[in-house]
Amino acid sequence: MAVGKGIADVGFIGLGIMGRSMAGHILEAGHQLHVFNRSKSNAVDLVTLGAKWHESPGEVAAASNIVISMVGYPSDVEAIYLGHGGIIERARTNAMLIDMTTSSPDLAKRIAAAAAQRGLTALDAPVSGGDVGAREAKLSIMVGGDAAGFQKALPILALMGSNIILQGGPGAGQHTKMSNQIVIASTMIGVCEGMAYAKHAGLDLETVLKSIGSGAASSYALNNLGHRILKEDFAPGFFVEHFVKDMGIALNEAKRMQLDLPGLMLASKLYEQLVELGYARNGTQALSNLYER
Amino acid sequence: MAVGKGIADVGFIGLGIMGRSMAGHILEAGHQLHVFNRSKSNAVDLVTLGAKWHESPGEVAAASNIVISMVGYPSDVEAIYLGHGGIIERARTNAMLIDMTTSSPDLAKRIAAAAAQRGLTALDAPVSGGDVGAREAKLSIMVGGDAAGFQKALPILALMGSNIILQGGPGAGQHTKMSNQIVIASTMIGVCEGMAYAKHAGLDLETVLKSIGSGAASSYALNNLGHRILKEDFAPGFFVEHFVKDMGIALNEAKRMQLDLPGLMLASKLYEQLVELGYARNGTQALSNLYER
Repeated sequence: MAVGKGIADVGFIGLGIMGRSMAGHILEAGHQLHVFNRSKSNAVDLVTLGAKWHESPGEVAAASNIVISMVGYPSDVEAIYLGHGGIIERARTNAMLIDMTTSSPDLAKRIAAAAAQRGLTALDAPVSGGDVGAREAKLSIMVGGDAAGFQKALPILALMGSNIILQGGPGAGQHTKMSNQIVIASTMIGVCEGMAYAKHAGLDLETVLKSIGSGAASSYALNNLGHRILKEDFAPGFFVEHFVKDMGIALNEAKRMQLDLPGLMLASKLYEQLVELGYARNGTQALSNLYER
Repeated sequence: MAVGKGIADVGFIGLGIMGRSMAGHILEAGHQLHVFNRSKSNAVDLVTLGAKWHESPGEVAAASNIVISMVGYPSDVEAIYLGHGGIIERARTNAMLIDMTTSSPDLAKRIAAAAAQRGLTALDAPVSGGDVGAREAKLSIMVGGDAAGFQKALPILALMGSNIILQGGPGAGQHTKMSNQIVIASTMIGVCEGMAYAKHAGLDLETVLKSIGSGAASSYALNNLGHRILKEDFAPGFFVEHFVKDMGIALNEAKRMQLDLPGLMLASKLYEQLVELGYARNGTQALSNLYER
């Protein structure tokens, strides 16, 4: 399988906002794309451009040298890889399996072990960068797996991302993504509380950002989402409900490590309150609504 | 008093690490500097360069057209401004008083009111940027007070800072600084928890920072203090004990506003634990030690 040097059969399972963009780049590069998605309508555009529709993840796997997945929850990942008639059962000899879903590090290890038993290579490769990063092929891709598999996967990953780093063995990509989400969790609290304080103090938020947006308090979150908060723009860049899922995985892993993360616990609790208030399908900056009266 | 157009008598009270650098810039600009500090030894270098030593803040005020203070706690600010024989009592007619200490917004308002009763102008002008910003005259200066006073003070503030912004009336500078510290408080928790998780997961922290340091999780804190944390370098850029003071002021103000800030409360509690463990004179990145086992 010479991914970089010719046309490969590439399967892509999970055609949400990000998956559609990512699969599109693979198609544009000239590979034969094989797709499946729970709701078939999401595949229409790609099929029009030449992708081949299949009726299940297992069928995609049977037709592909490389199988990529970008689905919702760890339970979905487990079902499509380890389920009866799933990817591992039906994958071609020597196939490369790449799960790009943000999922559980422990599950990634189990998939890698099951894949190895069949002589397959599996990588966990979750991403950061959101819909814009997916559209512009500028995702940060955090990879777990063996070094040889990583080298073999690089050409196809390079079609989707610009910062592609092997973080360690199976599960290390997911662990790195969890670290990323843990940093964001409390950073978001800081941004929303700082903005809420400034608003309650009667300050002009735009002027406040001119003072605090370039110094020790500065962050991607403050300088991007801070401006959306002051405009009360809660449109999703990253959905609250997906963030809640990610924090749940991270809390489980931390518990397994016997690591106490009170900031993450607080963020998880606050975001769950936000879901209860009806903000599940808003962007994470909607957290600022918890500080309104 | 033509600050920008000639030599002024400028008083500077409080010659700690930052105060010394800031006062030095004023001296270098050719103004006659009048100084006081609780411990006289801190003034030796400036006096050698031509500053005039005085025996009290009140005496500095009696000799100056502009009085600047950079002291420790709000109680110190209150004593030197409002105390018997203090700055407001002894200031020259038409003097400009600028408190650059991070202090209470409420106290800033009381000082401005007391100053106005004597026909003096008072500004609150706390800074961000640390010892390096002070040394390089690149501080962010957040100003509260009236617009005419701000314009009059700009030339002298410009000797110390590069991002000088009027945030509103008396106390608005302090409120903006509180907003800055509130953002930092939870951001620091996020950085330390993300790093702690990565370490416990067995990842290489430097490689993790390559993945997460440039995306949605990125911040000044992550990219500066994150590298110090992985090297276990806890030398102070900003002292834990000063941060605890700032968070205490912010929590008081939030309480006054009836604003619940659970992230700030958590950060304050964690940093107080850190003080109890003996880290008061370390940098704020020492918070990562709470997550060690």
